[in-house]
Amino acid sequence: MRIVPASEFSLKREVEYGSAEQNERVKQIIDEVRRDGDAALRRFAQQFDRVSVDALRVTRAEIEAAYAKVDEGFLAALREAAANVRRFHEKQLRSSWMDLQADGSILGQVMRPLRRVGLYVPGGKAAYPSSVLMNAIPAQVAGVPEIVMVTPPATAGVEGIDPHILVAADVAGVSEIYRVGGAQAVAALAYGTESIPAADKIVGPGNIYVALAKRYVFGAVDIDSIAGPSEIVVLADETADAAYVAADLLSQAEHDEMASAILITPSPELAEAVAREVDRQLGALPRREIAEQSIRDYGAILTVASLDEGIDAVNRLAPEHLEVLVREPFQYLSRIENAGAIFLGPYSSEPVGDYFAGPNHVLPTNGTARFSSPLNVDHFMKKSSVIYYSKEALLRDGHKIMSLARHEGLEAHARAIEIRMEKEGNSNG
Amino acid sequence: MRIVPASEFSLKREVEYGSAEQNERVKQIIDEVRRDGDAALRRFAQQFDRVSVDALRVTRAEIEAAYAKVDEGFLAALREAAANVRRFHEKQLRSSWMDLQADGSILGQVMRPLRRVGLYVPGGKAAYPSSVLMNAIPAQVAGVPEIVMVTPPATAGVEGIDPHILVAADVAGVSEIYRVGGAQAVAALAYGTESIPAADKIVGPGNIYVALAKRYVFGAVDIDSIAGPSEIVVLADETADAAYVAADLLSQAEHDEMASAILITPSPELAEAVAREVDRQLGALPRREIAEQSIRDYGAILTVASLDEGIDAVNRLAPEHLEVLVREPFQYLSRIENAGAIFLGPYSSEPVGDYFAGPNHVLPTNGTARFSSPLNVDHFMKKSSVIYYSKEALLRDGHKIMSLARHEGLEAHARAIEIRMEKEGNSNG
Repeated sequence: MRIVPASEFSLKREVEYGSAEQNERVKQIIDEVRRDGDAALRRFAQQFDRVSVDALRVTRAEIEAAYAKVDEGFLAALREAAANVRRFHEKQLRSSWMDLQADGSILGQVMRPLRRVGLYVPGGKAAYPSSVLMNAIPAQVAGVPEIVMVTPPATAGVEGIDPHILVAADVAGVSEIYRVGGAQAVAALAYGTESIPAADKIVGPGNIYVALAKRYVFGAVDIDSIAGPSEIVVLADETADAAYVAADLLSQAEHDEMASAILITPSPELAEAVAREVDRQLGALPRREIAEQSIRDYGAILTVASLDEGIDAVNRLAPEHLEVLVREPFQYLSRIENAGAIFLGPYSSEPVGDYFAGPNHVLPTNGTARFSSPLNVDHFMKKSSVIYYSKEALLRDGHKIMSLARHEGLEAHARAIEIRMEKEGNSNG
Repeated sequence: MRIVPASEFSLKREVEYGSAEQNERVKQIIDEVRRDGDAALRRFAQQFDRVSVDALRVTRAEIEAAYAKVDEGFLAALREAAANVRRFHEKQLRSSWMDLQADGSILGQVMRPLRRVGLYVPGGKAAYPSSVLMNAIPAQVAGVPEIVMVTPPATAGVEGIDPHILVAADVAGVSEIYRVGGAQAVAALAYGTESIPAADKIVGPGNIYVALAKRYVFGAVDIDSIAGPSEIVVLADETADAAYVAADLLSQAEHDEMASAILITPSPELAEAVAREVDRQLGALPRREIAEQSIRDYGAILTVASLDEGIDAVNRLAPEHLEVLVREPFQYLSRIENAGAIFLGPYSSEPVGDYFAGPNHVLPTNGTARFSSPLNVDHFMKKSSVIYYSKEALLRDGHKIMSLARHEGLEAHARAIEIRMEKEGNSNG
């Protein structure tokens, strides 16, 4: 791994917006689904997935059959992970509130779950049961009554839907599953078909066609952020174990060639030791080629004069994952402004959060932690303001409201107040 | 106003995405600002606003001078409105939390304000001081240290920046003001120039060029939702005052020709009376032509068999503003699923909320209340997850985490756990 001063490094990875041709193709697919509904979905399954889809909806019997196909150890771990994720997200729930004023007015916010949420799950080897939990459970905790999963009916090398995915969906509280993938699945969730009612929001990762389709339907429905390339930054001092640091960097690098793994340290000894360890550990990895390319293109060990300078570098990078492997990690927490998830201390390896601890693994990527948050319960709720003004309050404030409205040239606004002031027998405010 | 059964009505207004030419122009403007910085901003001011801009930043002296130009009644009302908005939004603040587990692990969420937020304010007659309050105060309450306003240096018929806008910005806690408008202002906020550092989020309404530019830079920075046409639904029974209902419908209709004002009622008498009142009150309005066209094209009185059926119609429409003018309005609150702001009872006329009561007037339009919320403090904060796993927890859970990682084919993830399990002297979980 290259070792460079932090001041000389910047991480630039372009976000994929797709070619004009891909955009056009996605638009056509969406238009066809809007026009032909289920028939279009079946046609695209034949064309793209090379399968005939009869019943779009997966039956309860199929889900039960999936349970028989997964091993018990996996299922037990999945259930425990789901319980942890549920517990962490339950702490995020907020109540509606109404505040009674002395003048008899009541102001407040009503919090409500969305009614129907669609969850896209990619097919084949890109299908991760852990992602099903991470996307569906916050919606379930929010109280969303209809959580709908869509996933390709089949993908290269895989027959049907992976039973691990079906089981994860069931454990996570998904209420309906449809075998439909790609841009056509996004179109179905956004606009509805005969079999698949339209949703209010679409979440979950997918290939470039899925991402473009989500961008396209945004506005008709809400979408989550479009996931960009993924990254980890490890901030470490001389107390860190180089083998742990290297292993954690590689766990990010194996995701894909665009992933970025960065160590920031004031210790030249650690820098050298981690560089050696990365080389050593790389050799034995099944996804060695991917990890090697990621480390070469987007990996770096950044040297800094102090941990304080290291924190500044972290805030500039705004990483998706940040590990803090220093003597007293909590003392730096208040200075970390930009990071999706912060892992503190030697035992909080990133996979602990990816799979098990409870916090969400759907995180802001590619520097968007400056303004975005991990997927959470708020993403599946909406708020309404409540205003109950008393007669006393209206008579007291009416003239001020009219003054503001008239300064903006909105006379009908002023009159809506004035007509009440006059009828209620007091126009002097 | 036409009177039709609710079952026969649907509100369809197309969202404006701009012509190919407008999109191309916006892209060019953004590229020029990225390339030439301040020089591009000055060039566009000359070209579009027909003024020479020397200093881009508005000085403290100019703000002080603006106070001398606004009348005292307006200023007092504005300050009181600002205090109300501040108080309502302070109730939305949330604390960071950390939860200590029995095994010594700590899990939590850190809440932080964004660092820098840009607020776009249109020029000329579309400049509303109330909107400056509504956009800036939630950011201020969130703790955003840098709140930056941009607004055109001059617009048709108006010399310089409206002093009411400057005063509102100052009252609302805006920390910097720049005289730059249009797509070029959005570009400056997204990418930064020599004089204007880049922001993390851009909010505020604007014309089609501003809206297209916001769409374009989304991803590099966060944006608020793109405001669509505005609407009010009044749900009323026979106890409602027809003159109040008509005045409230017209206060929405005067906004613009695309605005929609709808009454839903089970009372045929009220329907007839409101139709007459709308005609009568329309005659005297200065913005009569706009209101008339809005009422004709997008206004309607919808008849229903019962208030329950009326609530169903409300939820289908998902209005930006909902007034409930019925005998016992609070008894319906729990059934209202989709509405931006809910105004209860005869004294809660929409302008009370538009200007004064405290809840935000930036609301989800055009049916997006199904999944969106009024502008609020959360929109100016971000969350980070915190994971501090204890050695005990890692040794207990390590094998389960490895099982999940290996089922997903991510061996380096498993090894980051395994290397710790081995070193910590216990690989049996």
